[in-house]
Amino acid sequence: MATLGDIGLAAAINILSALIFLLAFAILRLQPFNDRVYFPKWYLKGLRSSPTHRGAFVSKFVNLDFKAYLGFLNWMPDALRMPELELIDHAGLDSAVYLRIYLIGLKIFAPIAFITWAVLVPVNWTDDGLLQERNHNVTSSDIDKLSISNIAFGSQRLWSHIAVTYAITFWTCYILLKEYEKVASMRLQFLASERRRPDQFTVLTRNVPPDPDESVSELVEHFFLVNHPDHYLTHQVVYNANKLAKLVKKKKKMLNWLDYYQIKYSRNRSERPNMKTGFLGLWGNKVDAINHHTSEIEKLSEEIAAERKRIAKDPNSVMPAAFVSFKTRWGAAVCAQTQQTRNPTLWLTDWAPEPRDVYWPNLAIPYVQLTVRRLIIAVAFFFLTFFFMIPIAIVQSLASIEGIEKAAPWLKSVIEVPFIKSFIQGFLPSIALKLFLIFLPMVLMIMSKFEGFSSLSSLERRSASRYYLFILVNVFLGNIIAGAAFEQLNSFIHQSASDIPKTLGVAIPLKATFFITYIMVDGWAGIAGEILMLKPLIFYHLKNFLLVKTEKDREEAMNPGSLGFNTGEPRIQLYFLLGLVYAPVSPALLPFIIVFFALAYIVFRHQIINVYNQQYESGAAFWPNVHGRIVIALIISQVLLLGLLSTKHAAQSTPFLIVLVVVTIWFYRYCKGRFEPAFVRHPLQEAMMKDTLERATEPNFNLKGFLQNAYIHPVFKDGDDDEDDVVSEKWESESVLVPTKRQSRRNTPLPSRVSGASSPSLPETVNDHHPEP
Amino acid sequence: MATLGDIGLAAAINILSALIFLLAFAILRLQPFNDRVYFPKWYLKGLRSSPTHRGAFVSKFVNLDFKAYLGFLNWMPDALRMPELELIDHAGLDSAVYLRIYLIGLKIFAPIAFITWAVLVPVNWTDDGLLQERNHNVTSSDIDKLSISNIAFGSQRLWSHIAVTYAITFWTCYILLKEYEKVASMRLQFLASERRRPDQFTVLTRNVPPDPDESVSELVEHFFLVNHPDHYLTHQVVYNANKLAKLVKKKKKMLNWLDYYQIKYSRNRSERPNMKTGFLGLWGNKVDAINHHTSEIEKLSEEIAAERKRIAKDPNSVMPAAFVSFKTRWGAAVCAQTQQTRNPTLWLTDWAPEPRDVYWPNLAIPYVQLTVRRLIIAVAFFFLTFFFMIPIAIVQSLASIEGIEKAAPWLKSVIEVPFIKSFIQGFLPSIALKLFLIFLPMVLMIMSKFEGFSSLSSLERRSASRYYLFILVNVFLGNIIAGAAFEQLNSFIHQSASDIPKTLGVAIPLKATFFITYIMVDGWAGIAGEILMLKPLIFYHLKNFLLVKTEKDREEAMNPGSLGFNTGEPRIQLYFLLGLVYAPVSPALLPFIIVFFALAYIVFRHQIINVYNQQYESGAAFWPNVHGRIVIALIISQVLLLGLLSTKHAAQSTPFLIVLVVVTIWFYRYCKGRFEPAFVRHPLQEAMMKDTLERATEPNFNLKGFLQNAYIHPVFKDGDDDEDDVVSEKWESESVLVPTKRQSRRNTPLPSRVSGASSPSLPETVNDHHPEP
Repeated sequence: MATLGDIGLAAAINILSALIFLLAFAILRLQPFNDRVYFPKWYLKGLRSSPTHRGAFVSKFVNLDFKAYLGFLNWMPDALRMPELELIDHAGLDSAVYLRIYLIGLKIFAPIAFITWAVLVPVNWTDDGLLQERNHNVTSSDIDKLSISNIAFGSQRLWSHIAVTYAITFWTCYILLKEYEKVASMRLQFLASERRRPDQFTVLTRNVPPDPDESVSELVEHFFLVNHPDHYLTHQVVYNANKLAKLVKKKKKMLNWLDYYQIKYSRNRSERPNMKTGFLGLWGNKVDAINHHTSEIEKLSEEIAAERKRIAKDPNSVMPAAFVSFKTRWGAAVCAQTQQTRNPTLWLTDWAPEPRDVYWPNLAIPYVQLTVRRLIIAVAFFFLTFFFMIPIAIVQSLASIEGIEKAAPWLKSVIEVPFIKSFIQGFLPSIALKLFLIFLPMVLMIMSKFEGFSSLSSLERRSASRYYLFILVNVFLGNIIAGAAFEQLNSFIHQSASDIPKTLGVAIPLKATFFITYIMVDGWAGIAGEILMLKPLIFYHLKNFLLVKTEKDREEAMNPGSLGFNTGEPRIQLYFLLGLVYAPVSPALLPFIIVFFALAYIVFRHQIINVYNQQYESGAAFWPNVHGRIVIALIISQVLLLGLLSTKHAAQSTPFLIVLVVVTIWFYRYCKGRFEPAFVRHPLQEAMMKDTLERATEPNFNLKGFLQNAYIHPVFKDGDDDEDDVVSEKWESESVLVPTKRQSRRNTPLPSRVSGASSPSLPETVNDHHPEP
Repeated sequence: MATLGDIGLAAAINILSALIFLLAFAILRLQPFNDRVYFPKWYLKGLRSSPTHRGAFVSKFVNLDFKAYLGFLNWMPDALRMPELELIDHAGLDSAVYLRIYLIGLKIFAPIAFITWAVLVPVNWTDDGLLQERNHNVTSSDIDKLSISNIAFGSQRLWSHIAVTYAITFWTCYILLKEYEKVASMRLQFLASERRRPDQFTVLTRNVPPDPDESVSELVEHFFLVNHPDHYLTHQVVYNANKLAKLVKKKKKMLNWLDYYQIKYSRNRSERPNMKTGFLGLWGNKVDAINHHTSEIEKLSEEIAAERKRIAKDPNSVMPAAFVSFKTRWGAAVCAQTQQTRNPTLWLTDWAPEPRDVYWPNLAIPYVQLTVRRLIIAVAFFFLTFFFMIPIAIVQSLASIEGIEKAAPWLKSVIEVPFIKSFIQGFLPSIALKLFLIFLPMVLMIMSKFEGFSSLSSLERRSASRYYLFILVNVFLGNIIAGAAFEQLNSFIHQSASDIPKTLGVAIPLKATFFITYIMVDGWAGIAGEILMLKPLIFYHLKNFLLVKTEKDREEAMNPGSLGFNTGEPRIQLYFLLGLVYAPVSPALLPFIIVFFALAYIVFRHQIINVYNQQYESGAAFWPNVHGRIVIALIISQVLLLGLLSTKHAAQSTPFLIVLVVVTIWFYRYCKGRFEPAFVRHPLQEAMMKDTLERATEPNFNLKGFLQNAYIHPVFKDGDDDEDDVVSEKWESESVLVPTKRQSRRNTPLPSRVSGASSPSLPETVNDHHPEP
């Protein structure tokens, strides 16, 4: 049992490291040579250009304006200043809504913390349950005196906990309902105010049945001409361009090497760079590197051209899927929402994702394979989740004082030093856990890809669900049980799997201190570390030193990253879960969670404004998942309290908590019916309104030309290298933002433009290399 | 514990009563005066007219052709002879597919019975587990020697049970898959071959939002003209005609009384019948009954006319719902499958049910109320299900020998008589259970109506789901636990609710004899009683004696009844559940179940051909429910076997059974994705094909006229009494069946007409009393 002193030390360490991170960030971000690391978003938007072009040589790299260092937390109010509507314009709806998750955390937990500290803490503190138990050799710490552990068995005081649980449930549901309403209306407004985009008119058709007499393209055209005669406009088949993509990738790598050697040569004109042609350049013939790469690139270019031709001609390279475009949004909405043929596994239609959101390799998986793949992944995920627990449990048992003393008795004298002991108890379990979790998201993303989702956004959502389940089982339940296992080992191992609510309920108050340190390490120091962006910082400067010769290269060296919904959101959900579970049990945990939400809100707001560059825009399609998981956390908290109370000999409270669970489930279903369709389906009225409006304002728009090449495999577009320039040019010309080209070194936001309707749209750049079906 | 002798006696009694029922049926059905009771379907189709018109007086009532009595089971081959396609023509797809449920029972259980008797019975019989247990004072009977109870703890023989469970699972899934395929294709073929029907073009729109400036009718018209401009044709608003319906009902009752008095007067011309005007005719002024009723009817007719006018004029009598019709099936399919507006709880669209299938009172319930109602009913159903168990448990504990002896010691000498003892053990528990179940379907139907479903078919499906849950908890689980409670009371009462699989698993073999007698009482004698139709027989003759004066009255006196999906299907499902649960445990049960399925198949086939008159045609929309419940039974059987085996110290078998459960769940999900859409959604290709065909064959059909009055509240149609005549006239003129007007007294079916495409269609009769919106 950690004492108040342990927690104090852990808090001090974490606050200190958080402060160090923030200070380092404050200093680093003011240096001009870091400008592209800490403000890449503005560069990508073309609203900021390199400060290295002007002024004295030193001031290109180091900020000599010492006044700038005084307000080292100045970025915080700056980050908070941009209004939400402008934020949506600036970073997209996904990011703006993502930030709302942190806000919800504050909205939910601030009042709950108030009520629990006002009601439960005095009730807990003034009882003497722990004193009674101490007679039975149960140890406890000061923190436990604030928790439900201090209530005597069967005490009437437990009613206050039930009453507070009711208050928590209703307050949480109220906030969730309001937020769902708000987000749904934001989404609809966002969709309604969007400019014309190809995905508004396009439906992704999968599982086109094979036909001996017609090509896929003909078949698709005939099918939709017959079944949607008034609305069908055009279509694009999907090519199997995996080989081509490989070649293009190879060519790009070669170009990179060529660049490298050319820079090398330009720096040292005396000697042409050489290389060996064998494996990794370690052996083989020595050749002139520049000539060799130039000829290799020429060869590859020819191969690529040949492969392009082959794909365009070979019917086998056409996959049984197509992007079908319609004359109106109404026609597309109809096609996406209806079943086309008798067999519901053929001609599957669904809204096309944004072109940049498409995950091309998965477009050709047939239905039966999809269900089999889902089964395989479900089983694999099950084993991943449950066998992953074993190493965690072992490591954590080792990382406790008793575990280390048992495993390595010679260390006893060292770890009995008070400071080291506190350090081990405060830090090691959390760090062990963190290490385990680093490689997991990649594995989960591979699983999702194998499952066959066809857009990046759905891949991320799926991975997030899996990751949440994993965290729930392994971080939350795993820590409660495995941790408790050392204390209750004998009574535990032979229990049936169904007494889990009770067992967990008993263990929960005991683990409060563990989770407090976890929150400080993961939530406080971790979030503060996020803003420092250590990895992108190092990589940027390495690249800058080695490769960059032009402004364009410097732009490519930037790695703004993105929010990473698949890892970020489940992590936030863990805090919701901890907060809701511990609110009625150990209110001492809540202030730590509130600090986390507040800090994370500011940090991520700053990152979204200045750093991250989202890869797609799903229009907050993830919100039903977020909502659902918070409700799940609420239900888990009720069930665990039920288990805890029944071990407290307060069985008469069971019906009251069961009623609460039923009401919460009903609330979930109500919200699902009321709001979820706004995130899945597409109301015809909206489509018709936009169609009508557009027909009136732009009667002669060439929609077919607009849609013709929207959904072409990116590999057919990447042929020219000047694409990025075109994109940024388009950005500059199309953006309604005032193109001030500010040179300011601080991120003072632009004047707010609330009514603007532009949003990050995809570049419609298309070059001539696409095949004509 | 019932012995083999007890079961033999119960079997003898039940076979005897079944035979008596069948014999009585065979004799009664040959009597001409019962013709309308046993062959009403043919009268309704106009293919048979009363035999009482011709021949000698006696032969009008009694069949004197003694040869006819010889083959008293002749109806059985007759019932089996009609091919399925003709059956679909004759009775509709619902009935034909309903029969397939019994066939599936035979297909599943015949091979399973073979394999279990070939493998498990020898394995069980040759072990000696019961001998060992007998040393511990556990009693057992001969039947138990055939069951898994006879296997010793931890025996390797249990692997054979697991292997057989695998075989059972795969066989059952295979049959279910084939049947789902078959039924889905039957449904699609049925829908494709149907004649033009109003519901193919019509969508039911609910939750029309209130508008201060427009009436509901205008609002609906404008909305659909804007959002479905190319397809909208016409619409009908829904009137709140509850008061009118009451008046019409009252008038009908008056007319009946008038009839009665007129008959009374015509039989006895000397005296005009009198009546008292007060309560129930017991006091008040004496008046001439015929005159009184005539004037009352006139008054009512005026009131009805006034109410009709009021409804047509008063905007408050219009409910916020409408039947919207489209120019094409394609347009209706699109509207039914899409979301109309931003708010998914307004302008809810769904396919309109058949006009005769509409449940009018529920059309105006708003969305929020619907979800609240659902919550209320869910809670009410929970209490109904779980508190209903208490009386059953009490009755059954009383109805056992020990219970009676304890409750009424003075009866001891009587019930110790061997015959009476066997009777009590064989019969009383089942009968007690049956009595409880008689009033339940009515309660469940009221619950479903309260929940707000808008068609009779969905009401019946919902009630069936509830009834199934009820049977599962109370008949199946309730009997296993409550029954076992007498034997294991002490060990049972303090167990946690989560050990149920184990507890149930242990109890299952012990209850085999109880369920065998249950199957015989409910399944054998009950089904044989069904064909006798005692209640309709008595009511028909009572009415015939008291009221009938014309051929039309006689037709009205017929009460053919219908299949009653809401009670029938869950009862069949109980047999699936019992069969699957007991197949690996006590194979002795299976032959009884096979006899049930065979007998029920023949009886219901006969009833469907000759008696039942379905009230609606849903196109086998219930099949996903049927399929799902059989899969649930399969999963329950696997879980219970898991529990049983783990108490048999065969814990190493657990993973094998868990794999089976996972595979079964996956199978369910696969089938759901593959086939369920065929029962819910409406492929656009099919709609387009029919539209195109119809446009080519009948280019000038007046669709608007056809649809104009299709969805009018029945009370606006019932004004004229001659409707039935019109219906039957239409039947005769439209039916493609050869109108032979057969006088035969046996139900030789018509020559088979496989290719016919006519199906029971709704009467399009419309009279002039409907209000013009």
